[in-house]
Amino acid sequence: MAVIVQKYGGTSVGDAERIRAVARRVAVTRLAGHEVVVIVSAMGHTTDHFLDLSRQVSPNDHPREMDMLLTAGERISMALLAMAIRDLGVEAVSLTGSQAGILTNTVHGRAEIEEVRAFRVKEHLDRGDVVIVAGFQGVSAVNKEITTLGRGGSDATAVAMASYLGADACEVYTDVDGVFTADPRLVPEARKLDEVSYDEMAEMAGAGAAVLMSRSVELGRRWGVPLHVRSSFHHGEGTWVRPATAGPPRLIGIAHDPDQALVGLAAEEDAAVVAEALLAAAIPADTVGVGRDGAGAAVPRDQAAAAVAALAARPGSGEVVLNEGVGKVSLVGAGVADRPDTVARAGEVLDAAGIPVLLTAATPLRLSSLVPAESLDEAVRVLHGVFFAPGPGGAR
Amino acid sequence: MAVIVQKYGGTSVGDAERIRAVARRVAVTRLAGHEVVVIVSAMGHTTDHFLDLSRQVSPNDHPREMDMLLTAGERISMALLAMAIRDLGVEAVSLTGSQAGILTNTVHGRAEIEEVRAFRVKEHLDRGDVVIVAGFQGVSAVNKEITTLGRGGSDATAVAMASYLGADACEVYTDVDGVFTADPRLVPEARKLDEVSYDEMAEMAGAGAAVLMSRSVELGRRWGVPLHVRSSFHHGEGTWVRPATAGPPRLIGIAHDPDQALVGLAAEEDAAVVAEALLAAAIPADTVGVGRDGAGAAVPRDQAAAAVAALAARPGSGEVVLNEGVGKVSLVGAGVADRPDTVARAGEVLDAAGIPVLLTAATPLRLSSLVPAESLDEAVRVLHGVFFAPGPGGAR
Repeated sequence: MAVIVQKYGGTSVGDAERIRAVARRVAVTRLAGHEVVVIVSAMGHTTDHFLDLSRQVSPNDHPREMDMLLTAGERISMALLAMAIRDLGVEAVSLTGSQAGILTNTVHGRAEIEEVRAFRVKEHLDRGDVVIVAGFQGVSAVNKEITTLGRGGSDATAVAMASYLGADACEVYTDVDGVFTADPRLVPEARKLDEVSYDEMAEMAGAGAAVLMSRSVELGRRWGVPLHVRSSFHHGEGTWVRPATAGPPRLIGIAHDPDQALVGLAAEEDAAVVAEALLAAAIPADTVGVGRDGAGAAVPRDQAAAAVAALAARPGSGEVVLNEGVGKVSLVGAGVADRPDTVARAGEVLDAAGIPVLLTAATPLRLSSLVPAESLDEAVRVLHGVFFAPGPGGAR
Repeated sequence: MAVIVQKYGGTSVGDAERIRAVARRVAVTRLAGHEVVVIVSAMGHTTDHFLDLSRQVSPNDHPREMDMLLTAGERISMALLAMAIRDLGVEAVSLTGSQAGILTNTVHGRAEIEEVRAFRVKEHLDRGDVVIVAGFQGVSAVNKEITTLGRGGSDATAVAMASYLGADACEVYTDVDGVFTADPRLVPEARKLDEVSYDEMAEMAGAGAAVLMSRSVELGRRWGVPLHVRSSFHHGEGTWVRPATAGPPRLIGIAHDPDQALVGLAAEEDAAVVAEALLAAAIPADTVGVGRDGAGAAVPRDQAAAAVAALAARPGSGEVVLNEGVGKVSLVGAGVADRPDTVARAGEVLDAAGIPVLLTAATPLRLSSLVPAESLDEAVRVLHGVFFAPGPGGAR
């Protein structure tokens, strides 16, 4: 008998029919003899509805009350899911983040989990109940205020609970079959990966692979929780995210991120100046280098204006350049940047496809290229075709 | 400086505009120097929406999870109201029933408040905050399960909180100006009552006056809380419900209840048999007597079938009669049944208007007549015209 934590996102519980489908899946796991804790997000559009209501009432920020409002969302989905599971003859109870002992700091809207005291979860597991826990929410340890965990919060709840319970797996359900060598919506021949390390997954997620949030990968690594990214549509195995096993370095996949902007300085200054200016302004920039038009960096598009301001405010002169129409394509794998042949070949492949590379940067686990946004999908496809070709012809 | 508890129902917070209107009212009270606790129900149609969702998911009863689901409703309205109040420059926080220390028994769906431990409410009041408390909900003292208080639950929360705080008033906001000598929608010349006793109000409410629930009047009496029923549309005084003051007995008003059925036994048995059979089946019947067609009782229409079954199951014979098309009109006032002239006059007035009286019954505070449902409104008007005529000509 194993202890299994299952996490279902808002789409998986988007309506009554889907809630009943999730209930069947949970019941099957329980009836197979496992102890099951389910972490659930708010139903599909609930959060948007609440945000809309709050905007109708107030134009201002009220972080404490916004958390109170938003946490009604998981309350709805978890109660409905508990009903659907009980209808299948399996005992189930829902618990709020507070009841489940998810203790956080006091930062409303993006709290961090500080401790888990899930006594009530354990009591119910001991009785044989399936326990449904509200994702995304907790209660501050110091003043008992309701908090939310921000983006990816339900994943964080799942990983924290799995760690506390010493769970055999933290299953993250999604609408794809697992982690692929590229986004299968763009690259139909992309292959599902059976297992990746935390490092590899973190790099893929950070470079744009949306299947799992960087934050949950980081928490999984920190707390030693085996993650299993799998489909909510069938019972096949997905992708396990676990500590690295011994073996030669390998390429993992092509990640891409369409929501990037390139900011830089024309010609006369070097990449370190750009990196320092952005760092000082707390703007994330993990792809910094010297490219076609000077030193530059990729930043999230919604932070482009802030990035331009940060560069303009630096000591020294030189025109700040901005290109909001760029995407980032990344070849992820251990030691990728240390292989001159790989770096050169990536450049040749994009060049041969007529895709201009605006900037290239490498980290120990990743080689990223900025390309015009309209060429991003094609860049993903041609790089995948070369580095992940099926059969013995592939570079892998 | 007074301590004021204000209770707003679901209609008062039905949309963003109304929430802002309530916020202005609360802010005015706070800025006048009072300590203010606001009890709020779920927004207008929220509860119906949740009930609909739960029916889509499950055909069965899940009382614990239904309470978890429904309590999301007040969470939404209270957070939005807190935002709207804060926008006016008045500090406000919302607290769930659990956070506000509303401790109940364990009966999901219709829990009773056992104790109030509103430490957090007091702390916030001491800081100058307006405190918004979710009505209708609490937490069970023995096992920390979320409960709901059933019909009239928000009023119960308000009265309990007012008692705990020793509030100067528990203000119950409504869409009418207070308690009237008759429903002003039926009787335009009905007069607002400035003050009634708990006993008088309980009798009016029990006989159908919908402005205040019997349960909240009963709690007000038990805990000695002065209730102030008033309009949410203006700042005029409404009706105070307080302990009786010395003075001659008086008539209070005409209450009516359209949702009644008359069940009875044809001719040969007496009213006591009817009363006992209904009592044994736990069917409320506060109007029992011998009428035109034999011994009978008025019961809530939705319990008519159960009442017929209870009478049919009694020892003895005799046909059970049922008339589902009746309404109850009640003349409320101390000693009303002890005045033969009043009883006689009521009968004459209805007779003169051509309204058949199917059954009459009296209690120390009330004289009730069952009439055909289609004649109920007219019965209210003619009785009010005689017993509450304006000016010195009135019986009062």
